[in-house]
Amino acid sequence: MTDADGSLLLRTPHELLAALRAQEAGSHVRVALDAMGGDLAPVETVKGALAVAGEHLSLVLVGRRAVLEPLVAGAPHVEIVPADDVISSSEEPAKAVRGRPDSSIVVAARLVADGQADALVSAGSTGAVLAASLLYVRRLKGVSRPAICQLMPSMPLPIVFLDMGANADVRPEHLRQFAVMGQAFATEVLGLERPTVGLLSIGEEPTKGNQLVIEAHRLIAADEQINFYGNVEGRDLMNRKVDIVVADGFTGNVAVKVTEGTARAILGAIKGAVTGSTRAKLGAALMKPHLQRIRAALDPEEYGGAYLLGMNRPVVIAHGNSRARGIGNAVLAAARAVTSGLLPTIAARLGADGSDEPPTGAV
Amino acid sequence: MTDADGSLLLRTPHELLAALRAQEAGSHVRVALDAMGGDLAPVETVKGALAVAGEHLSLVLVGRRAVLEPLVAGAPHVEIVPADDVISSSEEPAKAVRGRPDSSIVVAARLVADGQADALVSAGSTGAVLAASLLYVRRLKGVSRPAICQLMPSMPLPIVFLDMGANADVRPEHLRQFAVMGQAFATEVLGLERPTVGLLSIGEEPTKGNQLVIEAHRLIAADEQINFYGNVEGRDLMNRKVDIVVADGFTGNVAVKVTEGTARAILGAIKGAVTGSTRAKLGAALMKPHLQRIRAALDPEEYGGAYLLGMNRPVVIAHGNSRARGIGNAVLAAARAVTSGLLPTIAARLGADGSDEPPTGAV
Repeated sequence: MTDADGSLLLRTPHELLAALRAQEAGSHVRVALDAMGGDLAPVETVKGALAVAGEHLSLVLVGRRAVLEPLVAGAPHVEIVPADDVISSSEEPAKAVRGRPDSSIVVAARLVADGQADALVSAGSTGAVLAASLLYVRRLKGVSRPAICQLMPSMPLPIVFLDMGANADVRPEHLRQFAVMGQAFATEVLGLERPTVGLLSIGEEPTKGNQLVIEAHRLIAADEQINFYGNVEGRDLMNRKVDIVVADGFTGNVAVKVTEGTARAILGAIKGAVTGSTRAKLGAALMKPHLQRIRAALDPEEYGGAYLLGMNRPVVIAHGNSRARGIGNAVLAAARAVTSGLLPTIAARLGADGSDEPPTGAV
Repeated sequence: MTDADGSLLLRTPHELLAALRAQEAGSHVRVALDAMGGDLAPVETVKGALAVAGEHLSLVLVGRRAVLEPLVAGAPHVEIVPADDVISSSEEPAKAVRGRPDSSIVVAARLVADGQADALVSAGSTGAVLAASLLYVRRLKGVSRPAICQLMPSMPLPIVFLDMGANADVRPEHLRQFAVMGQAFATEVLGLERPTVGLLSIGEEPTKGNQLVIEAHRLIAADEQINFYGNVEGRDLMNRKVDIVVADGFTGNVAVKVTEGTARAILGAIKGAVTGSTRAKLGAALMKPHLQRIRAALDPEEYGGAYLLGMNRPVVIAHGNSRARGIGNAVLAAARAVTSGLLPTIAARLGADGSDEPPTGAV
């Protein structure tokens, strides 16, 4: 496993930006950001955008002009495209996207669809981003279902995990496509050489699993272009037995949230030491830098968000509660996908599949 | 939520045994223990059995007499029933159970089926315990599928979680039955008053989930005898939003293993401090008692193992790598189930359902 340019180990937006600038000198990427999407929008979305905008990376902030203009304050490389409406996370996504053409996520998705921006970033409702992307950005030819792909905290390096919830019900062939897209992501965006793919199941043997997984195992194993390790179990996510883990969106979403919940509970319990004995308090104080490193390695915001793989343009869904740093990382992640060989690689591998069935949104 | 007799908070076999003795004074329970099952059998299985055997709790150790006799050394309340064969975890369970009538798990299961013991405990292959139980102990009338139910580490109290993997593919009605059995367990074995049931999904709304879960939600909500909270998410396991969480065996097994893997990775990383800076080393040393408490709360061996719910007699599947303490806890857990109202409650609630389809083993 080679981490060609160390991008996996880079942490701050500044480091990521420096890497991006060094690599893509001469190229210019334009990212459309749904400035109104997310719990902390628009203050944190704009702040995050300003932190990463530059000569090689310009941003189109989509949202209420009167709100955004004072925040942008004439900063360079940042443009505002007005959208007066906002879709909230309580709305039924597909209906809201169809019925609210002036919402920030719909306007941003249309900018990308029309070629006025190269990639889409939003911290808004995952369902709305998914619906707007499907309707306007559209799937790459041959992709049956897009998948939500995230760098999941793992040790020592994050793991590529998909689907995190775009598809609650899938067929075996969809899991094979997820394996193809995950491998393309790990190779083209992360620069890993011959990354390995694992299929999430309940035992290592090919016969272990539910009917979906047993049949998917057979399909993936038969695809010679996939570097298939075989089944992996839930405990293998954190010990990083493989580079990429494939699951249906229901199981994937549960696994990611169990990881987050467990990490939060344990770190919370350790933090509880500061209200405990004097001895434990002192111990916690001394261990603080060490604990902070662990906490940072587990912080989903480090990775900026999740990629919606299989679309005609890169789409990054940032965490709903992203602060400026998370938004900045999401924009950099989107920009990185634009300049990488991700989309051509997926298109080349799946373009011949040619299926074109309707997706089922889930999250 | 009431924890009537504090049993959930009891930790050591001795405390559990004291509670059991206090409660069930006068009653006498006989547990059949597969003495050859488990990675550390028979030394640790026998040691665990001897630690908990007593006036009110006798044990039938099933296995090779020549091996067991020196270990038992004439201890009181412990009997040996010979079985010369052992099923290993690499064998296909159903086939092995049918073909090896002299194996320790099969002989133990038959003792229970014949009424010569009240409950079955084994740390052997989960699949073999499941197969032997289905064949000999058999399901309670009306139970479509037995479910593996475990007390899962959570904070501040463990959570009742099922199915952990007896059924990789289920129908919505099976999930409703799991809810009924989990509620019976929490009420009758743990002594919780009106425990709440959550259905593991990928969103709180009844419309969130895969087709299986959406339909199961409808069935469980319509069952007035289930104290249904609604859907819970993966992150709610550790924060214990409900007393009982129901899932299909595939998702359940993934969730449990993700929890274990995440806990191990984080605690391992914290332990890594002892090889870090002097400051972190000192901090870790001072925090050691606090960390040990957290580690103990997360240790699955504290809970002795998993219950196979829905059988005619209590069956407890101990962890394969159980040491004496884990085996002792598993025996106490089985004894506790015998003297509780668990089986009559499940029978009363599901007896009228009357379905009798074949189960699908998974793990």
